[in-house]
Amino acid sequence: MVPKVYRQFKLDGDTADPGHLQIARFLERLIHTDVLKENERLPSTTELVNLWGANITRIQRAMDLLVANGLLQRSPRRGTFVTSKRARPSVGILIGPDLLPGEPQFYRLLAADLKLEIKSKGLVPRLYDSYNGSRAPYGGGSHEDIHYDLMHRSFVGFTVVGVPRNALLLEEDKLQIGKSKFPYANFSTPAPDIDVHVDYHHFASTAVDSLISQGCCKFAYFPPSIGPRYKEHLKSFTDSMKVGGIPAKDYKVVKDMNKGIDHPQSVGLERSAYEKTISLLKKWKKSKFSPDAFIISDDIAARGIIAAVNAAGDSASKFVVQSNLNTEHFYVLPTARYLVSTAEIASNLVQRLTLRMTNSPHASEPEKIRGTLTKAYR
Amino acid sequence: MVPKVYRQFKLDGDTADPGHLQIARFLERLIHTDVLKENERLPSTTELVNLWGANITRIQRAMDLLVANGLLQRSPRRGTFVTSKRARPSVGILIGPDLLPGEPQFYRLLAADLKLEIKSKGLVPRLYDSYNGSRAPYGGGSHEDIHYDLMHRSFVGFTVVGVPRNALLLEEDKLQIGKSKFPYANFSTPAPDIDVHVDYHHFASTAVDSLISQGCCKFAYFPPSIGPRYKEHLKSFTDSMKVGGIPAKDYKVVKDMNKGIDHPQSVGLERSAYEKTISLLKKWKKSKFSPDAFIISDDIAARGIIAAVNAAGDSASKFVVQSNLNTEHFYVLPTARYLVSTAEIASNLVQRLTLRMTNSPHASEPEKIRGTLTKAYR
Repeated sequence: MVPKVYRQFKLDGDTADPGHLQIARFLERLIHTDVLKENERLPSTTELVNLWGANITRIQRAMDLLVANGLLQRSPRRGTFVTSKRARPSVGILIGPDLLPGEPQFYRLLAADLKLEIKSKGLVPRLYDSYNGSRAPYGGGSHEDIHYDLMHRSFVGFTVVGVPRNALLLEEDKLQIGKSKFPYANFSTPAPDIDVHVDYHHFASTAVDSLISQGCCKFAYFPPSIGPRYKEHLKSFTDSMKVGGIPAKDYKVVKDMNKGIDHPQSVGLERSAYEKTISLLKKWKKSKFSPDAFIISDDIAARGIIAAVNAAGDSASKFVVQSNLNTEHFYVLPTARYLVSTAEIASNLVQRLTLRMTNSPHASEPEKIRGTLTKAYR
Repeated sequence: MVPKVYRQFKLDGDTADPGHLQIARFLERLIHTDVLKENERLPSTTELVNLWGANITRIQRAMDLLVANGLLQRSPRRGTFVTSKRARPSVGILIGPDLLPGEPQFYRLLAADLKLEIKSKGLVPRLYDSYNGSRAPYGGGSHEDIHYDLMHRSFVGFTVVGVPRNALLLEEDKLQIGKSKFPYANFSTPAPDIDVHVDYHHFASTAVDSLISQGCCKFAYFPPSIGPRYKEHLKSFTDSMKVGGIPAKDYKVVKDMNKGIDHPQSVGLERSAYEKTISLLKKWKKSKFSPDAFIISDDIAARGIIAAVNAAGDSASKFVVQSNLNTEHFYVLPTARYLVSTAEIASNLVQRLTLRMTNSPHASEPEKIRGTLTKAYR
């Protein structure tokens, strides 16, 4: 007797969707929603042929697909069973920073989105943070966890985020990441093989266009930091100024906002940005430069800069801040955000990974993620 | 031939420290610092007797202790070995909230401190977050992880933080938490069996004393929220006002700071606190009430309240904010913090847990953690 739940399916002949995919999707949904339990036996192919009136090859092809995806397992002479969750293929998420302190907000958001994205492919996400090449003497460290899991799980690939190059090399003989035993997709800078990054030029030109259209004519620009991509950022901004017809005397680039800060992503940056901006505004006032537009590449620094402008009694200036979706910072004054979605970064990384898992051809150039400018809000 | 490293030990006869504990501590240090490797064989008791000139019973008692603690394992006829790290006793850390979003900063700090505290006892910490009674359809959820680990690890107890009562009951038949198969220590409110909480009365009286001694005479008090402990907080404050001789006309209690906020710990609270304070200050000005002292029980609300006072051009007021160590919020104006150490909470929880693990008598009253007031700083 075939359980009732299988009667919910009817092959749709009017769609271009191949019959075996319709069947596979139906079964997959039953498994993912736990309607079919772990280790539950499926009806025989003959029973399903009789129930659905479908071609036996279609049913077998659907089963083959789910076996290949790890959702079903065949046991000789006993039948086909729902794979136990533990035996399903896992994707490791390697995160360089420790996710427990306050600072790595961006990494936590991206980790959460990678988990969702990997789950949506029917794969099991396994998160390992503090994957930075240093080893705790024992216990609780992610290096130990990952080597343990390698013995007990079936990995099909890795996503790599913010992991220093030498930490991957350190593990190469065991994980074979970079020697392509495991396919992986990479979002770590600086790295020669990065797969995804933010489109800085789009950020600069979008911000400048929007501010000019609101009547701004004096610009202050705060690049993220003096790092390997600093020149790229700066060029994007000065190019946008040129395109917008803003002469060099009408903009300032403030370079050293995070100089001397111990934890560049911490509140120390906010405090220092506040104090530096207070004295910058005084200096600029003396030299008759009063910006009405601020472009800021860092969420945390932005809070300090904008609070300083507010404290100086200026609430007419316009602000554009590069930010991550879901991080609803409160900036005191109305501020437009150039939102870069961690969900989109995650989706692109997992897409590249699945292409590599199936050896499909794929682009080798990094994917440039574009943000969207929100209306000014608080 | 006994390896060189064992010669570093010499029994100290001048101390009250029993000989077997001196030996056990020496060996434990060698194991925790990885000088003795996993699965390494120890010298025989006879060899150690000859090397150290110690009584054989002392050496055996030291070994017994380390075997009981899971650091050593005896193998019949083969000798005594350093236990592999995976076989060492684990302590599970159950955290109710999901630690990946931005808000649960306090829980992340406490989780990190619990990990350190458990490691320092030679135990292996295992962190499970999102332990809130709801189950993800499959994969990656902490409920699945914990049941898997229960099969593969040796647990000796649990610390429980922010877990709703019904989530523990849900698991009772499997984890036996609450039926005392596993000892545990609890920091979840509301719960009848909470082991540790913050000393609210000490917070209120410390804040009031400090502000009075700085010449403040008009107070605004912002309790954390209208929750089960709201009345306790309020009484602590009004008692402190009475003790300090401040009449009721000279202080205001602002109750509804987080009313209508979706995510009480998020930036929505900061924004709303800013706006509500702006209009409160106007209202108070009309009725001739101008506070020079603010006592605020919430880090996030405090940022909004203080930014509003700053925007109103008042930089002479004094502020005390209840806060967690390491969370260096930037408040725009100099602010004293009543720091409650998550390390101290963690230490107290693990201390209670280890007492329960050895069935030692222990206090059943909750431990009250006191904070310390920092000097005003930015």
